[in-house]
Amino acid sequence: METLLRQSRAVCPFLKKTSPSTLRALSTSSSTSHVAGIAGGKMSNLQVLARRCPVMGKALAVQSARNGMNSVTSRIGGIRAGGLASTTQRRSYVVPTKAVNLQSTRKVEAMASNLEDVHIKAGIFDTSKGICPHGAAAMKAAKAAADLTAAAEHKLTVFQNSTAGKKAKFDYEGFYYNELDKKHKDKSYRYFNNINRLAEEFPRAHMATAADKVTVWCSNDYLGMGRNEHVLQTMHNTLDTYGAGAGGTRNISGHNQHAVGLEQTLARLHSKQAALVFSSCYVANDATLATLGSKLPNCVILSDSMNHASMIQGIRHSGAKKMVFKHNDLADLEAKLASLPSEVPKIIAFESVYSMCGSVGPIKEICDLADKYGAITFLDEVHAVGMYGPTGAGVAEHLDFEAHANGRPRGTAMDRIDIITGTLGKAYGCVGGYIAGSSLLVDTIRSLAPGFIFTTSLPPAIMAGAKTSIEYQMTYAGDRRMQQIHTREVKDQLDARDIPVIPNPSHIVPLLVGNAELAKKASDRLLDVHGIYVQAINYPTVPVGQERLRITPTPGHTAELQDHLVEALEDVWTTLEIPRTSDWAAKGGHVGVGVPNPEPLDNIWTDEQLGIKQDVAEINREEKAFADMLMEGLAKKSSSKATMDAMMHARANVAAVAAAAEAAKTVEIGA
Amino acid sequence: METLLRQSRAVCPFLKKTSPSTLRALSTSSSTSHVAGIAGGKMSNLQVLARRCPVMGKALAVQSARNGMNSVTSRIGGIRAGGLASTTQRRSYVVPTKAVNLQSTRKVEAMASNLEDVHIKAGIFDTSKGICPHGAAAMKAAKAAADLTAAAEHKLTVFQNSTAGKKAKFDYEGFYYNELDKKHKDKSYRYFNNINRLAEEFPRAHMATAADKVTVWCSNDYLGMGRNEHVLQTMHNTLDTYGAGAGGTRNISGHNQHAVGLEQTLARLHSKQAALVFSSCYVANDATLATLGSKLPNCVILSDSMNHASMIQGIRHSGAKKMVFKHNDLADLEAKLASLPSEVPKIIAFESVYSMCGSVGPIKEICDLADKYGAITFLDEVHAVGMYGPTGAGVAEHLDFEAHANGRPRGTAMDRIDIITGTLGKAYGCVGGYIAGSSLLVDTIRSLAPGFIFTTSLPPAIMAGAKTSIEYQMTYAGDRRMQQIHTREVKDQLDARDIPVIPNPSHIVPLLVGNAELAKKASDRLLDVHGIYVQAINYPTVPVGQERLRITPTPGHTAELQDHLVEALEDVWTTLEIPRTSDWAAKGGHVGVGVPNPEPLDNIWTDEQLGIKQDVAEINREEKAFADMLMEGLAKKSSSKATMDAMMHARANVAAVAAAAEAAKTVEIGA
Repeated sequence: METLLRQSRAVCPFLKKTSPSTLRALSTSSSTSHVAGIAGGKMSNLQVLARRCPVMGKALAVQSARNGMNSVTSRIGGIRAGGLASTTQRRSYVVPTKAVNLQSTRKVEAMASNLEDVHIKAGIFDTSKGICPHGAAAMKAAKAAADLTAAAEHKLTVFQNSTAGKKAKFDYEGFYYNELDKKHKDKSYRYFNNINRLAEEFPRAHMATAADKVTVWCSNDYLGMGRNEHVLQTMHNTLDTYGAGAGGTRNISGHNQHAVGLEQTLARLHSKQAALVFSSCYVANDATLATLGSKLPNCVILSDSMNHASMIQGIRHSGAKKMVFKHNDLADLEAKLASLPSEVPKIIAFESVYSMCGSVGPIKEICDLADKYGAITFLDEVHAVGMYGPTGAGVAEHLDFEAHANGRPRGTAMDRIDIITGTLGKAYGCVGGYIAGSSLLVDTIRSLAPGFIFTTSLPPAIMAGAKTSIEYQMTYAGDRRMQQIHTREVKDQLDARDIPVIPNPSHIVPLLVGNAELAKKASDRLLDVHGIYVQAINYPTVPVGQERLRITPTPGHTAELQDHLVEALEDVWTTLEIPRTSDWAAKGGHVGVGVPNPEPLDNIWTDEQLGIKQDVAEINREEKAFADMLMEGLAKKSSSKATMDAMMHARANVAAVAAAAEAAKTVEIGA
Repeated sequence: METLLRQSRAVCPFLKKTSPSTLRALSTSSSTSHVAGIAGGKMSNLQVLARRCPVMGKALAVQSARNGMNSVTSRIGGIRAGGLASTTQRRSYVVPTKAVNLQSTRKVEAMASNLEDVHIKAGIFDTSKGICPHGAAAMKAAKAAADLTAAAEHKLTVFQNSTAGKKAKFDYEGFYYNELDKKHKDKSYRYFNNINRLAEEFPRAHMATAADKVTVWCSNDYLGMGRNEHVLQTMHNTLDTYGAGAGGTRNISGHNQHAVGLEQTLARLHSKQAALVFSSCYVANDATLATLGSKLPNCVILSDSMNHASMIQGIRHSGAKKMVFKHNDLADLEAKLASLPSEVPKIIAFESVYSMCGSVGPIKEICDLADKYGAITFLDEVHAVGMYGPTGAGVAEHLDFEAHANGRPRGTAMDRIDIITGTLGKAYGCVGGYIAGSSLLVDTIRSLAPGFIFTTSLPPAIMAGAKTSIEYQMTYAGDRRMQQIHTREVKDQLDARDIPVIPNPSHIVPLLVGNAELAKKASDRLLDVHGIYVQAINYPTVPVGQERLRITPTPGHTAELQDHLVEALEDVWTTLEIPRTSDWAAKGGHVGVGVPNPEPLDNIWTDEQLGIKQDVAEINREEKAFADMLMEGLAKKSSSKATMDAMMHARANVAAVAAAAEAAKTVEIGA
């Protein structure tokens, strides 16, 4: 058995890197028989995978027949190269081993070398063919991995010696394999796409090779601030003066003017007394909820059922009692609040924009309930900061648009929220997260949260760049307005095509697919055939049966790119026979799509706030023709190329006018 | 009572920003009487603070006497400006209110304005005096904070109305205040120093103002890679081409060639099959241990008693059974391992260099125990990567120096470790963390850990810069050698001065102070008097009674800077009467200092590995005089300035020779 394994590894360059303990686990039929259903009959998982390999499949059959070793090949087949999954993007590499009966080591080596050539000739790892984006690197990695075999064998020997006559030890590698296999089976295993977003060609990116370009339609760099010239200039200058990293935790040499300035800007943005920056908003949510929930005596955390994983983890880590209320359901929330004693501390944790469906939390109403029952409110504005409100502070600010635009932040929804959390990594285009709230709250988290205390500060250039980005968006609303206009256009066009947009009042365009495998195929076809990157969103990010494509337009997604997207989606929906809105309607509707008599939906940004009417009037005075086309386009969306081009020009003017108007009326930014 | 509070707030511009609920909590004697002991007699905490205020202290006394309101002033005094603590560095601002009995609002306002002037004239917030590093900003913040009062009062009214006739609701702000007050009382409250490390003047930094410069002696940018020209150039180029942020999670548009390349480099560095990058090593440790501990059935995690907070949190979050073994105690570890069933999965979690004391984990011996009892090993090399080993892979690599230097990684200590974690934010000068291990392990964490899955990727420029930094250190050992030589020199000089260095074989220079207040005073005096920044390390980072100053020399801390440090410490130890090594010895020793008949200590880097003998021989052929001085200096450390200067030149030569030799013999780095 061991000899066979060794020979097989020598023959297949990729099997080499699999440790003996895993191979042992794989070679027992019990651990592999669960995939029999896929191939039909009684084939093991390994056999199924082996037969799919273009090189080994045939050889396996021939060799098996020649040597009459069918019983052996059923135990040694192929193994999915799990370690390469994260680097070999567009397909999974199945590299089976081969049951051989060879006479000498020399012969085995020759065959191995030959096989490597065959694999390369077959194009499996040939970068130029575009099949494997990291061909050369993968080969190198595989060679390096092969070196590991000797040590692994040593370990195996130690293992076998030490277990002689004892109960078996735990098989860690076998356990990992099984965990991954479960994910492969339920289609939740993730293949990462290699997306290199190009600053000067936003929203374009190149894949593994610079020539292989695609349009990104699912980034959270919602406003393109990642390539904003002011942000980049600040970062270059800060890098030159203050270097790459912060050099320590906030307490030990990692606190600096960039942290001070950024936190002051964030406090100002949200009209709060103080703010605190973390490595990410995942860490901010986790650390803040875990700290408050564990420190507040007998605390109860009331959590919206669709809250982000970071909040769910923070609540879990707090050890506090958790009550989950139905998504955006005020009656359910109130019932739960009313069931708790008045004097018990309570935190209501929710979001403004829920990123996977675009729904929006009822902020004012939740504040009312919090007041009534003595709770504090924890609002995640991660997908809203930079995107809503006169200064980009989020949906809470947007709800009192005029008051905030006129510098009257007191008594507003944003003012009533106790803790706001946000990110620097989405609309602000950098990385990092934060909380904003009262001085005492922020100082308490600063003083008690291990996730803040015991970690290296963000680099000075990141903090300085994020500050510039926030301040830019505080004075200029043109980007987020244009983003909203593009969102409306994409939603309108898709609605017109009967392609199922999950209805919502925000900037997210979620397309219902309803099946994990289909969603992945749709994403792959968009990329492979149309050069459009939209990641499939599957379980556990969304519930099973609600799988979707999540599209995020930006100011850079002009009419031409929109047309390209819509045509591509039309092809994908047709080719893959994905249900249309009318199909869902025929079944009574699903996830809000095709639901009879839907509630009317008011967009967060109104026409008036978007300045559509005003801007049109201004343009009117100068260029009547363009304005007419713009209105016409917004109303019923013409798809003629000439009209679109003209509209693009008109829109650029709208943006310029809006920018000037905005700059004139918003607050002045201090040093 | 409420009227008085309102008047007091109007008078004191900084009290304004404190919410009514906190003030209410403060105004009850029970919550403030605990500090009576400090001032003697029965004064409240507020009174004590109020009397310390240079402006209000006197006015308080006069006014109290004039109006016979002593009973009131004992209830309303001063409040530490908690919200400013993170931005007003070198001292805590105590801004008391004043009990007044004024007739009209107009009069109150006039007085408030006047008082603000008085405060400014007194220099409390005058930037030019260098007392408050953020004077102007603090004033702005205070003004903004004052605006919050109206809303807070509204909230208070709502609160009072809604609680009428009901049981009181929880007082959140009062709770925060009390939590912070506990930290003030036990001296664990942290004041951050504003340190802006200057890339071109490393290891110098400026404080809040550019002219106020200090030497940083406690950064974890151990090798100065944060200002390495190759790293910075890579970051500039990447910023220009790929922009500021990654734009998404690894699964949704945030995976790119920079992530792929960095993870390949990390896997190669540690000779592992795969690696995975996280926002920080705090997140890497937390996410990996939490995921493994919760997924492995009935897992037990054996944790060194001095493990970092990130591991402690990860273990807690896993919900797995935890067994803490005594620091570096193999017998205790083995007893605990032996008490567990053979088939139960076990993780031994430990560190290579423990950062606060510089002790080093027994890596090979722990691997032996892991093999014997069927455990896997989880080694945190956060403070060791870049610093030890022929290619900078850490202490595990260093233990088989020759084998790794000659490209034979199999069967070594590093090879035997199952999971290595490290940081990109210390010796590599950037930010971020990672794990390295088998393909299946890494893929499992990649697929299951929420802290990896649900967070925005590090920016392309950070990942590219970190990769350059690692590769630079893989081929050039001169920085880490020079760091070790400087560490030896500092330790030797301090030993000669009877200043208590906690003995250890690594690059950390911990000076025992043994008292929280004294450690803070020592740090403050170093900064204020000598322009040297060394942060005090107090509870909970180290146990009470083991408070220390933690010094981290770098290649940039030349002889001149070393002399300056040693003289400054001599002054601090003398002025503050901090115990010397001989004082600890007289008491039988403490934390390894002054212990009778200590175990001999072998530095991780041997003389031979540092190339001291070889380099001296080479220099010898050219410059005999310098070499003699160098040897002499290393042996008994002369403090004469002239000798030091000469030695600096000699050392520069040593570094150059070492670099050339190292570059010639280490592995070539691929593209």
